[in-house]
Formats: sequence, C-alpha cells, structure tokens
Amino acid sequence: MKKLFIEKIIENNSKYLNKNLKLLGWISKKRTHKNNCFFDLVDSTGKIQVVFENKDDNVWRTVKRTKEEVAVKIIGKVKQSGNKIEIMGSKLEIVGKVDFDLSPRPRSDFKIFDRKYQNHVLSNRSYYLRNPKQAAVLSFKSKLLFELHHYFQEKNYTLIDAPVLTEMLLYDDDTAFSFKNNNGNRTWLSQCCTFQLEAAVLAFEKVYNITPSFRAEHSRSNRHLAEYTHLKIELAWADLDDLVNVLGNMIYDIGVKIKKIATKELKTLGVTIDTKNLKPPFKKISYSTAVDILNKNGHSLEWGKSLSTKGEEFLTKYFGNKFIWIQFIPCSAEGFPFKYHSTDQRLTMTSDLIAPFGFGEIGGTAEKITEKKELLERMKEKGRDTKRDLERYSSYINLRGYGIVPHGGIGVGIERLVRYFLKLPHVKDVISYPRLYGRRWNP
Amino acid sequence: MKKLFIEKIIENNSKYLNKNLKLLGWISKKRTHKNNCFFDLVDSTGKIQVVFENKDDNVWRTVKRTKEEVAVKIIGKVKQSGNKIEIMGSKLEIVGKVDFDLSPRPRSDFKIFDRKYQNHVLSNRSYYLRNPKQAAVLSFKSKLLFELHHYFQEKNYTLIDAPVLTEMLLYDDDTAFSFKNNNGNRTWLSQCCTFQLEAAVLAFEKVYNITPSFRAEHSRSNRHLAEYTHLKIELAWADLDDLVNVLGNMIYDIGVKIKKIATKELKTLGVTIDTKNLKPPFKKISYSTAVDILNKNGHSLEWGKSLSTKGEEFLTKYFGNKFIWIQFIPCSAEGFPFKYHSTDQRLTMTSDLIAPFGFGEIGGTAEKITEKKELLERMKEKGRDTKRDLERYSSYINLRGYGIVPHGGIGVGIERLVRYFLKLPHVKDVISYPRLYGRRWNP
Repeated sequence: MKKLFIEKIIENNSKYLNKNLKLLGWISKKRTHKNNCFFDLVDSTGKIQVVFENKDDNVWRTVKRTKEEVAVKIIGKVKQSGNKIEIMGSKLEIVGKVDFDLSPRPRSDFKIFDRKYQNHVLSNRSYYLRNPKQAAVLSFKSKLLFELHHYFQEKNYTLIDAPVLTEMLLYDDDTAFSFKNNNGNRTWLSQCCTFQLEAAVLAFEKVYNITPSFRAEHSRSNRHLAEYTHLKIELAWADLDDLVNVLGNMIYDIGVKIKKIATKELKTLGVTIDTKNLKPPFKKISYSTAVDILNKNGHSLEWGKSLSTKGEEFLTKYFGNKFIWIQFIPCSAEGFPFKYHSTDQRLTMTSDLIAPFGFGEIGGTAEKITEKKELLERMKEKGRDTKRDLERYSSYINLRGYGIVPHGGIGVGIERLVRYFLKLPHVKDVISYPRLYGRRWNP
Repeated sequence: MKKLFIEKIIENNSKYLNKNLKLLGWISKKRTHKNNCFFDLVDSTGKIQVVFENKDDNVWRTVKRTKEEVAVKIIGKVKQSGNKIEIMGSKLEIVGKVDFDLSPRPRSDFKIFDRKYQNHVLSNRSYYLRNPKQAAVLSFKSKLLFELHHYFQEKNYTLIDAPVLTEMLLYDDDTAFSFKNNNGNRTWLSQCCTFQLEAAVLAFEKVYNITPSFRAEHSRSNRHLAEYTHLKIELAWADLDDLVNVLGNMIYDIGVKIKKIATKELKTLGVTIDTKNLKPPFKKISYSTAVDILNKNGHSLEWGKSLSTKGEEFLTKYFGNKFIWIQFIPCSAEGFPFKYHSTDQRLTMTSDLIAPFGFGEIGGTAEKITEKKELLERMKEKGRDTKRDLERYSSYINLRGYGIVPHGGIGVGIERLVRYFLKLPHVKDVISYPRLYGRRWNP
C-alpha cells in the first residue's frame, strides 16, 4: 500500500533530502527542454516537480512515452532547487496509460464551474473529479459532513437511521419517486424523514440524520437536485424560537469550524468565509411582510405562493445582504405536519432561513402538530384524508395518542449550504456524480 | 427548550439538593401506596423517582389521572432518600396522554429481542423505540457510525457521496429495486457504490462512504435487509493483503473505541465486547479449503456456491470460534468488478471476513480490475455484455483507459457489525424502522 504522500515530502523536506524515494501519482504537466523532461507529479495531497535527464536510454524512452494524466511510479532522489525541492528521477514506470483525449484535461487549470463546461463536465464526472477545484469542493463537503456529525454527537444528539423506502411522504405522491413490487403494491423514496424522527424524539429527545432525500420534480433551477443530502434535526420540548436559535447557532459554529479546518480547500478555490455575516441573530420577517415588500418593489407574488429565488435575493438585499428568516409560511405552501399559527390558521409555525446574494433558502424549521384533531384537519386540507392515506400514515397519526410532547424539526440541504460557503454557481457542482434521473433519463 | 436532563441531576445531586426544579419526561412506572404516589420518571438520559403526597386536591386529582407512558411536566424539590436522591413533587401537568394500550408497555422491562415479540414490535416500532434496550441498540449504532466517520477522517480519507439512483449495479438487475420514469426509461436503487468510489480513488486515493444500499431479495435470514447501511472503503495502490489489513485493524480499533464510549449502552444490554477476540491477524483459509473442510464434516457445499450461514458457523468453530478470512471466492459467486486470481481464473482476488458464533460474514474485500479486456471478459461471464450494458457501464469501463492504478475495495454491513458487537438475534433489531418493502408490501 502507498505510504508516502507528496505533502509529507514537502513538509519534511530536510528529512527526505538526498534520499531515494518511490513516488506514486499522476502527471499533471509535462515540459521537455532539450535533454531534460519536467513533470508536475500530483497525488491527492500535493504537487512536486520531477526532473528526468536524458542519460539512460531505457528510462528516456519511457519518459517520451508518458503524457499528461497518466499514472506513474517514479524512483528519484530529493534535491534542493532554489527554495523548493524537486525529485531527480532515475526510474519511471507507466502504471495507468491514457487512451483518449479529454478537453480540457481534468487536471489542467481551467474554470471548471463556468457554465459553458457544465454539460461536458457532468457527462464525464468520473474523470473531472481529478480537477483540483472540483476535488477541493468535494473534500470541503467531506469535512463539513463530518463536522456536522461531530457537532451533534458532542451535544448528545442520537443519529437515527430512517429508511429511504417508505409510504409516508411530506408532499404529494406525484412529486416522489415510486415503484410497485411484484404484488402490485407501491412504495416511495423518502422526501423527508420527519415522520421517523418525530417518533424517535419521544425516546431520544434530540435526534438527527444526514441521509439522501428524493424529489421527483423537473426543476431546472440551480438549487434543486432529484437526490440530495438532507440534514434533519428533530427536538422534543422545542418551540419555533428554539429551533431558530439551534439552526442559527449551528450555521455560525460550523462556519467558524470549517473555515479553520478546510484552509487548503478554501485556498485552492480562492474563497474566504466571512464568519461575521454568519453571526446570529438574523433579522426575522413574516411571510406576509415579505409579500408586501416584494409587491411594493416591483416583484409580483400572490399571497400563499412560495417565494421565488429572485424574491429571496431581493429581500436579503433589502435587509443589507444578510441572512434573514421568513416566518409563518402559509399552509398552502407547507407540508401538513407543521402546526397552525396560534392566532391565524392560514399560517404555519415555520421559519425559513434565506442566505444572501441569491443563494436562497438553505434551511427550514417548523413546530410539529401534537393534537390528532389538528393533524387530521391539515391532512384534509392537503387532500390526504382518503382511507388509504389514513392507513399509510396511521403510525404517525397515532403517535398523538401515546405520550407525545411539543417538538419541532429543522431541515438543511447540505449541497445548498456548501454552495453558499463556497459561492458556487450550482448545487450540481457540489455532488460527486450527477443524479441519473435528471440527466440521462429525462434530459 | 428543555435544558435540564435527569442524568445531570443525578450526577450533580449536591448542586441540586433542596432546589425546586422543573422536570420534563415520561412516567415509566407508577405505584400508589396509601396517600403516596411514586413515579419512575424517565427521559433520554436516565431515571429518577418522584413522590407525590395526597396534600393538594388539585394535584392529587392529576396524579390519579396519570398512567404509565404519559408525558409529564413536574415541579418538585430534590431530596436525599437513603443514598439516592428523589423528587418531592408539588406540581404536575400531563403533557402527552395515552389513549390506547400496548402490551408489553414500551418502557417496561421485557425481553424485547425475544423472537415471540418480533412481529408485534416491528409493527409498532414508533412506540418501541422508547424501550430502554431498543434505545440502547440505536444509541450504540449512532456512536459507532460517528466513530467510523471519525476513524476515516483522521486517516485523511475523503467521504464521497454516491447517488442512490443509478444505472450501475453490482449484481443482476432483478435483484435490484427499479422504476421507470415518464419517458419509460428505467433507473435502479444502488446495490453498492463501488462504481463511483473506484472513479474517486483516482482523484482522492483514499475514500469512504456510509450510505443506504438496496437488495430486492426475498431472504428470510436474520442477516439480510432490503435496505441497509453500507460502509464502503476504496483504496488506490492497494492489494488484497493491504485490504485485509485495513479491515482487520478497523474492526479491532473500532471495537476498542466503542467499548470505551458506549459503556452505558453495553451495561443496559448486559453485553461485553471481548476485544481480545477482535485482535488481528485472523486465520486465512481459501474458499476451496473451506469447501473441503465442510464436505468432510457432514456439510454439503457444491464448489462455486456461496457459503451458508451454518457453513460459516461451522468453519469459525472449527478454527477456535475466532474471526476467519475466506479467500479467493469463485467468480460464479462474486461481482464482475473483482479481479481474477493470478494463477486460477475460476477464482477472484477476494477475502471475506466471517464473524464467529454464527454471526457470519460482516465484511468483504476485493482487488478490482484495472485492465479493460479483463473487465469485459468478466462482464461477459455474468451476461453483462449487451449493447445496453456496455452503454450503462461505459463510464466505469473507460476509466480503465485514463490513468487507472491498482485499487481495491472493502464493504461492511453496519447492521451486521452492530449485531455482532451486541450479540443480537437479528439485523432487524439494529434498524430504527422496518423496511417497508419487506414487511408491509410483501408480507
């Protein structure tokens, strides 16, 4: 197994100076100058220059056969070269050849997030994972996901696994993927694990989950994915203000932490995280106020409809390009598990977190219903009151007759959060592979 | 939001002694003795006794209305009672009532993992999450999942998300869930993310993922789930011995760690983890030797077929009730991405880790194919050589012409690993909710 990584050689150059080393990696750049050949050799940790001189015919033949993007094994000696170190190569083996051309080359320096490359890059993602900027995004995401686990585990939340295969959906059946089994019965892919986490808080009080959620919507926006990474938190004995505080503090704490631990990725991407902008509390405005402001300022939004990305962008700009909370979303625009507002039954006890600069909604919070009567009323509102529906949701409905307590939930789209931190044009830039449904099957 | 948890009161009893506190929790036991009522009040952290005396008529009426499993808010004073502390209640509010009976009661002390309760408990899992033993299993699982992330992040592995919706399957199409979209095109639920992780190692070298995998098999064994939590690791520049070492060390290191941090859960379950038995290296035997031993000892196994659970149990017993590796599984029983054995093309470069005492296979390792020709040959063997197949797997096949390096993968079924550590009868005891496909839709 590979033990020696390029970063280690650079960090400990005095230890390795004049030593003969075996290096495993890929050639990201090749230049030939008279009787010298210069490689930029890269691995997952860094880059180092390797020089071959035309001395040994056998070696030089192999040097000439190499091209950029091939995988190689190199034996060479560490040398000082100015204030840098480089490798004087003595042996070379091509481990993985390159049979075809990709343009731009994955490891070359190009603007991979420019929209003109999107289609090409997504269609060839297996190779473009090797691009340093794309790799930095995914490495950042990896660290962020771990820090989220760390954050909640330290606060004694329990990670509760929830099934993808479910009959309980947050939204309409036709916005979910589903299949029939051999018996003709239908099952769906989860849109949200709120149903499972709400049962779990009656045992664990503080729970969370980071799992794929699925939406069979044909959105062409830069904020939607057929399959995305969904952070869900559910808390017993919590009201809307509590949920708003938990999510606001989490965004700030995670922002501060990831800024510290992902310095390399941020540097590669040329991005800084301004933690001052992440500091809660954030301005709270009601949905109805938001509609008024928008309609007075040339946006047209019918009361009861969801805000558009443009509307969200205008509002955050209106309040100084900061995060804002939009509160008390109408029942018409929200799922049925969310509680009615105490004084206006057209509204729900919800609060959505909107990021500035057009990045839009990245998280939502909601108090959940504890009374069976209220739940059945909200299910009826949504047309979820058939005999079959009552059967599908029976375990969820009946929780309300067995030791239930006030509770609420928080949801965050991880790809949206990463997109915001890294100022990327599209959530697709944040996933390792395109989702089949949206790309290949319904182009 | 709830700030005060029962465990904290018990741990800091001198701090709270004679203080009036507000407690939020559930009544797990109620006993009335003359003019006194005794509750066992529980929350997610612990249990404490609360005493109410018949002094205030209003309060006593509420006391009489309470029953076991209701959620309550209690005001009371912390008192010393022998060497324990208890709460002298002064106010009581029923927060969540109980409208129907469940037998046995979720929070009562019964053998929840006894097979006679399985059907009842799985059908009512939303309530039985509250059972202390069931909750301990899920809490153990939560900690284990976090420690696995921790383990790999510390070793600089990158967490690579892989889509559930895919067209690349490890096994036959008819052993996978699938659906057609509106255009009549079919997509599948991932059986294994090896295809995505293999591309990723050419950028990140060391990657892992913990994500749901799906198998549409109608197995009635105690080791299979339609949807399970799959730990996948993929390593560049690794051969079979490397993979065996990585998995062996991981099992040991994680076992030592979880034994330390999940003491409460292990105590609740009355289980100890014997880390001596987890210490690698484990005995390695070839598949062919395994077949010989089995057939000489009254088991009948046709060469080329997978080992049965009984066969695995016999072999681990034969070698002293220890973990064993079964190596070089025949091509007929393994997926096509796995490399041929260098001297016997009937075999693959694989090694499965078998746990003792009948817990069976909990993980597997495999060297992956780097030559396109070999891959196409293995695909043909499996009947995966139609034009459509070559299109479906094209990005995977073509990796073999673009800087590929030797690499291999490791897979572990998390529910199997937890089941082994906790000595549970069934993997279903390790999931929070039953998987719909297997239970409700195909009973």
